[in-house]
Amino acid sequence: MFLRIDKLQTELPPPKRQDPNEAAALQELLGGKYGEMSTLSNYLFQSFNFRSKSKLRPFYSLVASITAEELGHLELVSNGVAMLNNGPDSEADDAGDGGDISGAPFADMKDIRLAAGFFSHGGGAVPVNSNGLSWNNDMVTTTGNVVVDLLHNFHLECGARLHKLRVYETVKDPTAREVCGYLLVRGSVHAHAYALALKNITGVDIHKMLPTPNIPLGNIPECQKYLAEGSHRRLYRFSPNDYEEIAGIWGNGETALPGDPPGELEVIAGMPEGGKIHQLTGVPSAFTPDYAPEEMFEIAKKLTAKV
Amino acid sequence: MFLRIDKLQTELPPPKRQDPNEAAALQELLGGKYGEMSTLSNYLFQSFNFRSKSKLRPFYSLVASITAEELGHLELVSNGVAMLNNGPDSEADDAGDGGDISGAPFADMKDIRLAAGFFSHGGGAVPVNSNGLSWNNDMVTTTGNVVVDLLHNFHLECGARLHKLRVYETVKDPTAREVCGYLLVRGSVHAHAYALALKNITGVDIHKMLPTPNIPLGNIPECQKYLAEGSHRRLYRFSPNDYEEIAGIWGNGETALPGDPPGELEVIAGMPEGGKIHQLTGVPSAFTPDYAPEEMFEIAKKLTAKV
Amino acid sequence: MFLRIDKLQTELPPPKRQDPNEAAALQELLGGKYGEMSTLSNYLFQSFNFRSKSKLRPFYSLVASITAEELGHLELVSNGVAMLNNGPDSEADDAGDGGDISGAPFADMKDIRLAAGFFSHGGGAVPVNSNGLSWNNDMVTTTGNVVVDLLHNFHLECGARLHKLRVYETVKDPTAREVCGYLLVRGSVHAHAYALALKNITGVDIHKMLPTPNIPLGNIPECQKYLAEGSHRRLYRFSPNDYEEIAGIWGNGETALPGDPPGELEVIAGMPEGGKIHQLTGVPSAFTPDYAPEEMFEIAKKLTAKV
Amino acid sequence: MFLRIDKLQTELPPPKRQDPNEAAALQELLGGKYGEMSTLSNYLFQSFNFRSKSKLRPFYSLVASITAEELGHLELVSNGVAMLNNGPDSEADDAGDGGDISGAPFADMKDIRLAAGFFSHGGGAVPVNSNGLSWNNDMVTTTGNVVVDLLHNFHLECGARLHKLRVYETVKDPTAREVCGYLLVRGSVHAHAYALALKNITGVDIHKMLPTPNIPLGNIPECQKYLAEGSHRRLYRFSPNDYEEIAGIWGNGETALPGDPPGELEVIAGMPEGGKIHQLTGVPSAFTPDYAPEEMFEIAKKLTAKV
Amino acid sequence: MFLRIDKLQTELPPPKRQDPNEAAALQELLGGKYGEMSTLSNYLFQSFNFRSKSKLRPFYSLVASITAEELGHLELVSNGVAMLNNGPDSEADDAGDGGDISGAPFADMKDIRLAAGFFSHGGGAVPVNSNGLSWNNDMVTTTGNVVVDLLHNFHLECGARLHKLRVYETVKDPTAREVCGYLLVRGSVHAHAYALALKNITGVDIHKMLPTPNIPLGNIPECQKYLAEGSHRRLYRFSPNDYEEIAGIWGNGETALPGDPPGELEVIAGMPEGGKIHQLTGVPSAFTPDYAPEEMFEIAKKLTAKV
Amino acid sequence: MFLRIDKLQTELPPPKRQDPNEAAALQELLGGKYGEMSTLSNYLFQSFNFRSKSKLRPFYSLVASITAEELGHLELVSNGVAMLNNGPDSEADDAGDGGDISGAPFADMKDIRLAAGFFSHGGGAVPVNSNGLSWNNDMVTTTGNVVVDLLHNFHLECGARLHKLRVYETVKDPTAREVCGYLLVRGSVHAHAYALALKNITGVDIHKMLPTPNIPLGNIPECQKYLAEGSHRRLYRFSPNDYEEIAGIWGNGETALPGDPPGELEVIAGMPEGGKIHQLTGVPSAFTPDYAPEEMFEIAKKLTAKV
Repeated sequence: MFLRIDKLQTELPPPKRQDPNEAAALQELLGGKYGEMSTLSNYLFQSFNFRSKSKLRPFYSLVASITAEELGHLELVSNGVAMLNNGPDSEADDAGDGGDISGAPFADMKDIRLAAGFFSHGGGAVPVNSNGLSWNNDMVTTTGNVVVDLLHNFHLECGARLHKLRVYETVKDPTAREVCGYLLVRGSVHAHAYALALKNITGVDIHKMLPTPNIPLGNIPECQKYLAEGSHRRLYRFSPNDYEEIAGIWGNGETALPGDPPGELEVIAGMPEGGKIHQLTGVPSAFTPDYAPEEMFEIAKKLTAKV
Repeated sequence: MFLRIDKLQTELPPPKRQDPNEAAALQELLGGKYGEMSTLSNYLFQSFNFRSKSKLRPFYSLVASITAEELGHLELVSNGVAMLNNGPDSEADDAGDGGDISGAPFADMKDIRLAAGFFSHGGGAVPVNSNGLSWNNDMVTTTGNVVVDLLHNFHLECGARLHKLRVYETVKDPTAREVCGYLLVRGSVHAHAYALALKNITGVDIHKMLPTPNIPLGNIPECQKYLAEGSHRRLYRFSPNDYEEIAGIWGNGETALPGDPPGELEVIAGMPEGGKIHQLTGVPSAFTPDYAPEEMFEIAKKLTAKV
Repeated sequence: MFLRIDKLQTELPPPKRQDPNEAAALQELLGGKYGEMSTLSNYLFQSFNFRSKSKLRPFYSLVASITAEELGHLELVSNGVAMLNNGPDSEADDAGDGGDISGAPFADMKDIRLAAGFFSHGGGAVPVNSNGLSWNNDMVTTTGNVVVDLLHNFHLECGARLHKLRVYETVKDPTAREVCGYLLVRGSVHAHAYALALKNITGVDIHKMLPTPNIPLGNIPECQKYLAEGSHRRLYRFSPNDYEEIAGIWGNGETALPGDPPGELEVIAGMPEGGKIHQLTGVPSAFTPDYAPEEMFEIAKKLTAKV
Repeated sequence: MFLRIDKLQTELPPPKRQDPNEAAALQELLGGKYGEMSTLSNYLFQSFNFRSKSKLRPFYSLVASITAEELGHLELVSNGVAMLNNGPDSEADDAGDGGDISGAPFADMKDIRLAAGFFSHGGGAVPVNSNGLSWNNDMVTTTGNVVVDLLHNFHLECGARLHKLRVYETVKDPTAREVCGYLLVRGSVHAHAYALALKNITGVDIHKMLPTPNIPLGNIPECQKYLAEGSHRRLYRFSPNDYEEIAGIWGNGETALPGDPPGELEVIAGMPEGGKIHQLTGVPSAFTPDYAPEEMFEIAKKLTAKV
Repeated sequence: MFLRIDKLQTELPPPKRQDPNEAAALQELLGGKYGEMSTLSNYLFQSFNFRSKSKLRPFYSLVASITAEELGHLELVSNGVAMLNNGPDSEADDAGDGGDISGAPFADMKDIRLAAGFFSHGGGAVPVNSNGLSWNNDMVTTTGNVVVDLLHNFHLECGARLHKLRVYETVKDPTAREVCGYLLVRGSVHAHAYALALKNITGVDIHKMLPTPNIPLGNIPECQKYLAEGSHRRLYRFSPNDYEEIAGIWGNGETALPGDPPGELEVIAGMPEGGKIHQLTGVPSAFTPDYAPEEMFEIAKKLTAKV
Repeated sequence: MFLRIDKLQTELPPPKRQDPNEAAALQELLGGKYGEMSTLSNYLFQSFNFRSKSKLRPFYSLVASITAEELGHLELVSNGVAMLNNGPDSEADDAGDGGDISGAPFADMKDIRLAAGFFSHGGGAVPVNSNGLSWNNDMVTTTGNVVVDLLHNFHLECGARLHKLRVYETVKDPTAREVCGYLLVRGSVHAHAYALALKNITGVDIHKMLPTPNIPLGNIPECQKYLAEGSHRRLYRFSPNDYEEIAGIWGNGETALPGDPPGELEVIAGMPEGGKIHQLTGVPSAFTPDYAPEEMFEIAKKLTAKV
């Protein structure tokens, strides 16, 4: 079972301008082969399909709890996409009669890359990559063989790191850059964790391949505050009471990777403090939430008052 | 953010025999157009993309909290699939040298419908339908328009009910039937909830279309215990503290649908008690978790001891 | 614009038994690469996109009018699919309370190849091939170059003939065999027509490649009545008043292919007489049209009475 | 069976300039999830698969006859796409030696969104969305359950309306705007018709949800002439003699939706008068219809003369 | 550039009986995620896209030359598929008038899993998996980053080994088992080679993870003759003169993996001796090569005589 | 079996500037329906699946040997794509610390059409078309019927010629134009060869349809040097010793097509001389081959020295 908290794992700064192609770049991190839909779904189905759960508890718990974190990553990237497509909030736009729609008010949407994203989703995020292609089952690996699955996961996190780096190098808006910075730190933790799991089973020091690609997090300004708070050494359990056994893998005297701020690895019982979810003000002229939403707002207000 | 609890929403009885084609039937409820990947992803992305969240709080909270329940539905169906592919647990099979693999021990897998499910996933669940076709973005509707999205969700839950009924009529194993019975009750709650949301906004008594298809839950033996406990009148918040505003929609004097056991609708602060996750004993001859896993078990034991 | 007539191009005999895998074989002729969705859509979009329509009128009219016939072919195959999935009509089944659904009444559907066809469509036809894969745009050729398009169409009809022959060799039910027999005759006409169009433009006697594959229609019992009535020499305009210019290609002294009953090619102003559409009796236990449809029947009766 | 008439349902004004990205926007209305391929195919296959046709005649006839109208909608959008990709007609371009092709005469095509549309189709329409993704079977709903299918259709028309509105807000060319204006009026009729069908069966006033999105047709200049002629109150039978029973649903004292010009709903025996199909002058340098088409024109002339 | 030799890498024993579902199992090794289309295409495109080829020559040459071997693997599996679909050769069937096609001579094809494989390909191999799903670009990884690509390749070969083992455990025919046995040995070589490449760059002893899954080749009877000839220690250059630099990776004192017959790794200048390609006798009644092919045979004979 | 030679079939001039959208145009010739993946795969699988190989040797050998040439075409286009995405070589960029990545150094990639091509492949070629859609099995025709397959191949080469012409008309860079010029000549040879094969079997002078589209190679400057050397009259065996029987089809007194430089057709025992493969200098800031590759270069140097 899963519970939901109405917060993001980290707070995103508001976008400085509407930039649908930059939002599309973030979509690569959402629905691309190495995006969050992939990491999430790989671990989610691996955890469902895990054999001999009780006898392999530390490995099962590792995959199961990282899954919960990945749900929050998917949420973070999706929020970034929607924010960049929407642009800075505009209180004025959030009500009224929707405005005159006959003057091609969205002519700018004609030339963006993911035009269908405006027509179909009004700028919302969906599980597609930066070219609008759907995420799908070909991106799910769950073989039932623990070594093959963990090896796949290690490679997946390295590939994901490469993609995040390239998206980071492409975007300028602080919203998008924050998404990349945060995910680079957390993705590095996951790569490290899967490497340690493999090391425990096979005896191979595969964590010595990290960082791959060969660039330290320290080179990326947006990672600094997360490194400073020790995020690169923390694995959250993302569960009130379960998955304690991951401490057998993430801990046990293992330390941060060379090049990152030093210190011991630690398992955190809960979750990060997180930040508030951005308000996406409506755009009535795009029928989001609708053309003339005041009545709807009024109804919602009354319903809320009854609670 | 999301948290994870190491339990299922309801406990599934163990399968009586291995039945890959029956597992494939359940896959329709996982990765088909009206399956759990669809309900989950529609509400997940709608909640990410929701405009004017604070002004439309009851509607946002409804979509957001049902999302969390759908994650557990996906988990439930996936567990059912893996259990049916695996068959009754066999302690003896869970260790040793994997056995002789040269005598075509899996010749039975040659003629099953989802052969790739054995070759690639060792019988695990993946986001495909009963013919092995991948779930994809064409099954996600998130328009940003609140009425269109809610209307879509209402139709989706009705379609899902129809599919669940047909799968139910096809399967014989108690594992599969329990999955269907539980989901039919909970799916009816979601259809009802979206209908009430629409009624509040548009004034149309669309909940009077329920049940669609036109058959009461009372006709289905596997639904009885859930009806008896009032599950059809309960909407769980699936959150420690958030989404209270759904009580403005689910409550307010609204009652159970005619034909179902009567009573007032109620919001439950937490989540259902749930049941334990089934152990999937390994099949070393199928390399799950591996060919000779004893050493791996030993390592896991030591790691667990360190926690 | 298109008009619709509530008849099939030829009448199909009722199926002798329910046979979902035989229905699935027919699906290859509906949604396969060389199926009716492909022939239809190729000609439909070619006719929309045709350049210099007035200057190339006979060629435009040929493509445009064959399109209308293909719509009826799609209808014919689809009816065959639905009839074979449904089985012989059963008046008794068409009403009542739907019956007891808790005894796995559709357990037989568990092992059919297109299980999703039962779960999602209740046995109805959809644009997929015999393995359930969707027809899609990769099967549409509309280059705008008249010679390339006509050459493609000629090859497409030859390929379609091969596929129809193989499906014919696989099926035993009279419904399915009639579909194949009728389409083999009409497909041969289309191959012949495109060959004559190419011959007029390029001077190459490409119709001398026919029949491809190298077997005369005379070998196929189900084709005899259509040959006897001269169907292989007729091209219907499928339009009240348009597309007369096709007589410049199909006619002009051209005669039937060697091996087929001899005679001159002729353009028919209207359409074939056609046959009645099969009634598909409902299966309330499969929720088609619904679980307890009597009230619906009553309403329909009253509405009809008002007309 | 279907007949074809060589006219469009309404006449489209010629484009003012070539605009491939605007044509791509129209593709969303052709091959997008809520596009004409979807509305057409949903109703087409539902009509093929309809159970108990004679007992549910008004509902069957409604779906069957709207199908015929949708074919014409597909034709209308496709013509719009081809016209916008082609630009204003240029008599001079329609013959000759094709011109010098070595100077990158189509360099402008390098940066358009649907580049494959030029390379493969020479600017013709195909069943893809505004990002070039193929329409496919995941967009077909035909469950065999009449209430679920009608509810789906109602939701589909509402979603289609939203998409048409957003495309309308994006395009400036009169060709594209006329396509949107016409389809908005006709789509509203279809939403209204399905709502009335549902109301007859279920008793729920679901038509009171209309218009969704919440904006009257009166706000859209391009809709005015169609409203003035009463198009919003007319349902065409699109058949010489069949489908009369739809008058039981569309009629019976029902009136136009509030906000639209008032009046009774009426069934029209035939079809709209329609308008001429635009000539798409060839572009020999793009090999449409070919590089040096004069000889082809000459041959066509002679063949036409023989008819 | 590539050259072609009209031989297989190893000779396949003829099939004992026609077995389309066993052929379908082999398709997983052809078009599945870890099949030969994937290994081939990953290395093919990586070799095309390789940066700094001259400075990284041993690594480039490794990927480039293994590509050539993979082409032969694809050929081997494809031959196996076609042989199993065809069954034992039947000289008598190879000519004549094709036989009577009206008695449903291929009724057996109705119930096979890949029915489209018979209808469309007459039993030939195509790039799809064991459920008929197409191989596609989502299965290609070519990041341009040498470490990520090599790590991916190592994981791919381990996954491919797992899939080959499961297919091996499912099939009984000597043709299919020989395909698996040969590919298991050669796949192990490739896994080993990529591990050594990674070891050279990163210093990590990743080859110590082998074999994964954890079962020695010695357990598989069909591997014995290849082990005996030392195939597990040989890397072929598959080039007349190029790619010598691979000896820097495969060689240099490295030895066979523990558990396999011991010895030094060696680079072979040429290619394996190979075996003859199986004659696939025609099935005229299935129109392969055609219905009455004698005339075609006669023509071919004359053309050959002219050479 | 296949051998590999470390050369291209013809040498490509270096690109004058980086132009990702021009590279994307070339992708149409790689992964589009009529691209090199299609020609290659059609002939490759047809050659695997060919029935009665010995009795139809000239036809088998024709398909089998052209396959080998197509592999080189795929390589040529892929090299062109990678070169255009990379731009002119820059020695300076090929080493060092990768540079500062925090200043959005790849902001230009945000607006290109195939953004995923940069994020996922660092500008490398993959089997997708100019809109990023994957090549797939729907583009493979291998029916087992020799006439249908050859007819398909003839049409495929004509279609491919049309696509190459349109891409040629769109690109300006000498790298891209050289790719088109070379492939136009070689594609014409293949169309001619398949036409002659069909003529031999059916007696139809189908080669008289050539050239289609109706423009001589002489109009294209980039084709001149290849015409001058007689490439349009040469069919290479691309095999050390096999496939000699193609001389029965390509030869026998057949001559060049009218409009091209005259002369007899000739089979060449070997392969063209070819040209060197372009060095793709690394872009460490894009992590190709990695961020700081000097150490990797050093290791490669030492490994090479050992050979």
